[in-house]
Amino acid sequence: MSVDLVDERVAIPGLAGAPAGEVALAEWTRGVRPSAIQEMLGLMSRPGVISFALGLPAPELFPVAQWTQAAAELLASDPGSLQYRPPHRLLKEQIVGLMARRGVTCTPEQIFLTTAAQQGLALLARLFLEPRGTVLCEELVYMGFQQVIEPYQPRILAVGSDLETGMDVDAVEAHLRAGERPAFLYVITDGHNPLGVSVSPEKRARLVELARRYHVPIIEDDAYGLLDFGSPIPPLRAMDDRWVFYVGSFSKVLAPGFRVGWVVVPAEMTQVLGCAKDGYDIDTSTFGQRLVSRYLESGHFPGHLATVREQYRRKRDLMIEVLRTEFPAGTRWSVPRNGALLWVELPRGMSARRLLMTALEEEDVAFVPGEAFAVPGAAAAGEHCLRLNFSFSRAELVRDGMHRLARVARALSGSP
Amino acid sequence: MSVDLVDERVAIPGLAGAPAGEVALAEWTRGVRPSAIQEMLGLMSRPGVISFALGLPAPELFPVAQWTQAAAELLASDPGSLQYRPPHRLLKEQIVGLMARRGVTCTPEQIFLTTAAQQGLALLARLFLEPRGTVLCEELVYMGFQQVIEPYQPRILAVGSDLETGMDVDAVEAHLRAGERPAFLYVITDGHNPLGVSVSPEKRARLVELARRYHVPIIEDDAYGLLDFGSPIPPLRAMDDRWVFYVGSFSKVLAPGFRVGWVVVPAEMTQVLGCAKDGYDIDTSTFGQRLVSRYLESGHFPGHLATVREQYRRKRDLMIEVLRTEFPAGTRWSVPRNGALLWVELPRGMSARRLLMTALEEEDVAFVPGEAFAVPGAAAAGEHCLRLNFSFSRAELVRDGMHRLARVARALSGSP
Repeated sequence: MSVDLVDERVAIPGLAGAPAGEVALAEWTRGVRPSAIQEMLGLMSRPGVISFALGLPAPELFPVAQWTQAAAELLASDPGSLQYRPPHRLLKEQIVGLMARRGVTCTPEQIFLTTAAQQGLALLARLFLEPRGTVLCEELVYMGFQQVIEPYQPRILAVGSDLETGMDVDAVEAHLRAGERPAFLYVITDGHNPLGVSVSPEKRARLVELARRYHVPIIEDDAYGLLDFGSPIPPLRAMDDRWVFYVGSFSKVLAPGFRVGWVVVPAEMTQVLGCAKDGYDIDTSTFGQRLVSRYLESGHFPGHLATVREQYRRKRDLMIEVLRTEFPAGTRWSVPRNGALLWVELPRGMSARRLLMTALEEEDVAFVPGEAFAVPGAAAAGEHCLRLNFSFSRAELVRDGMHRLARVARALSGSP
Repeated sequence: MSVDLVDERVAIPGLAGAPAGEVALAEWTRGVRPSAIQEMLGLMSRPGVISFALGLPAPELFPVAQWTQAAAELLASDPGSLQYRPPHRLLKEQIVGLMARRGVTCTPEQIFLTTAAQQGLALLARLFLEPRGTVLCEELVYMGFQQVIEPYQPRILAVGSDLETGMDVDAVEAHLRAGERPAFLYVITDGHNPLGVSVSPEKRARLVELARRYHVPIIEDDAYGLLDFGSPIPPLRAMDDRWVFYVGSFSKVLAPGFRVGWVVVPAEMTQVLGCAKDGYDIDTSTFGQRLVSRYLESGHFPGHLATVREQYRRKRDLMIEVLRTEFPAGTRWSVPRNGALLWVELPRGMSARRLLMTALEEEDVAFVPGEAFAVPGAAAAGEHCLRLNFSFSRAELVRDGMHRLARVARALSGSP
């Protein structure tokens, strides 16, 4: 594994800024950094590595037998699931039901199906953002979101985050009061990637109020929303159906391999979304849509979700137990109410990148250093931080991997 | 069905050009026309309509039992096919084999997997095209390509096409000699959508030569290339591996419902493509990739492809027979060597849109009027033309639908 993936943004040699006789690429490509997600996917397959790196679901919880049955039933009863088809109405109705469990009232006409949450983000950015436009988001934010906006070469208004209450809404308000009018504000309300935090109810209400007052749309990324560990808080979309554009996904609660997600938007906006989506990939996989729908029809989903929540919560607790008892004094962490990711702040002065190199070399443990999530210009924000995933590895490996990581962290910090 | 879908580009009311208090959308959305493809997908499901409208594969030829078996085997042997995974190496190797059948030499490192051909086009446009950049393509061209470039608000250099030899390469050369340097040239080499024509071997050689001389990359859309009816001509990529960027797909030869396709590009370009794709949808469906790969492994594909080619060719011939014997004098048509689409030019002065309205109302027959494929500014190009699909309907319905269409065309033309 190369640690290039967390290097500063680098040009890809020989491609951008084409000299005579080379293919000329668009200007935005000069700033791209190698795809950390793809590199991490490669790394995960190195035998023996305990990976806390990517936000992958626990593979042992996939209900393989039920998927097999759903696929057989689907192909037998509906061979048209192999064809181009209009978006599947039944799946939209089923999503309306899931949204009700999140406290959101909406209609099937407000559901637009997407090739998973990432495409939901991409389509909404396409709708709101002009080239070189302005975006408001956190300094430490989902890498995939940064990849969505990168081709627009945007100006980023970055605000901080609190490990217990989420996005710094005072800073948001200060930008808006100063006259900034970003194309949109991006917020991950629950199970924040990478911070593992949920935005507090008070901050949710303030964000909605600010969006209304200053006429700034909010893209609400709720990919982990259904994956709560008890006492869920309704998303922003439950408070506002005009300024909040909600992004959901089956990737974290069912399986990422089908690429099925959705956005909830005003019904009149689905037409222009349809045009944008035609330009991206025409259809969300008909087979994927109908397979997920068939699975939901089978009635197994509530039980599956309960199991996933219980298992992830248990692994989260295992991780926190080791952080509490074995990491250097001064280490802080988030306590996620949702999702699959946890954020660790080492004592100031420690380098997460150095920790990663040693952990990989000596202990076969992988994670993503915090600086990988920093927006351009804020690289220092995550220097002493780690993003740890607790969903993917089995419980015994979570415990083992955390013991190993604690050993390296103590050694680097000079603790006994 | 509304014929709005072939109207001039219209603004979607209440969305773009937001007045105070409305969500402001990006400027490009003001020019979008409603998604004709999505509307057509809706129309196809109206009972009793014989549809020559969309380029859909014949559903009765889907090897449903083999797909069911492949899905069961895949889930049993590889539950990781439900997970995020790196692009499937075996599938890339299998595609190298398919490309060899097209006369193209390439390596797995030059294959980049995409969410079908449409995403291949979108990613390559993303790589080459700046906002308000220039694109060179035909006046009558695949609607989905126009939707790919629409958000860039490009300047389009449009050239004509010949029904027997394809793109007007003299006009291409004239633009380049006059100093134009488009971000890329877009060409559909075989089974042109909507024209059903193949570019002649002479024109292929000239296009490659022009790309080299003027340093203009070519995006070669070969979605229908494997679907030849005998005597296939190698694509441009067989002649050049530097300036030609090839787009392929399983949608037309296997099934559109999985959304799996590929591009063939210089190996060093896959990294920046990976960054762009991360921003679009992260992964091409792992399940889709592996299911297609498993199907190809089963060895059934060559036989399936032979059947599809034979059936489509037969239906093409049925269609042409009716055109030849029952349509008004002066009607012209393409004789496709590949694919699923055929172009009909009615005698000058006849309106394809009027024909469509009557055909739908009186005869329950659907097709797409040619003007729907005209790039902005060239609307007159297809006014008296029809795009007919011959792959989707069963042979007896192709014959029946063509009799009905001929009846309407004769009535409108005043022929007996």
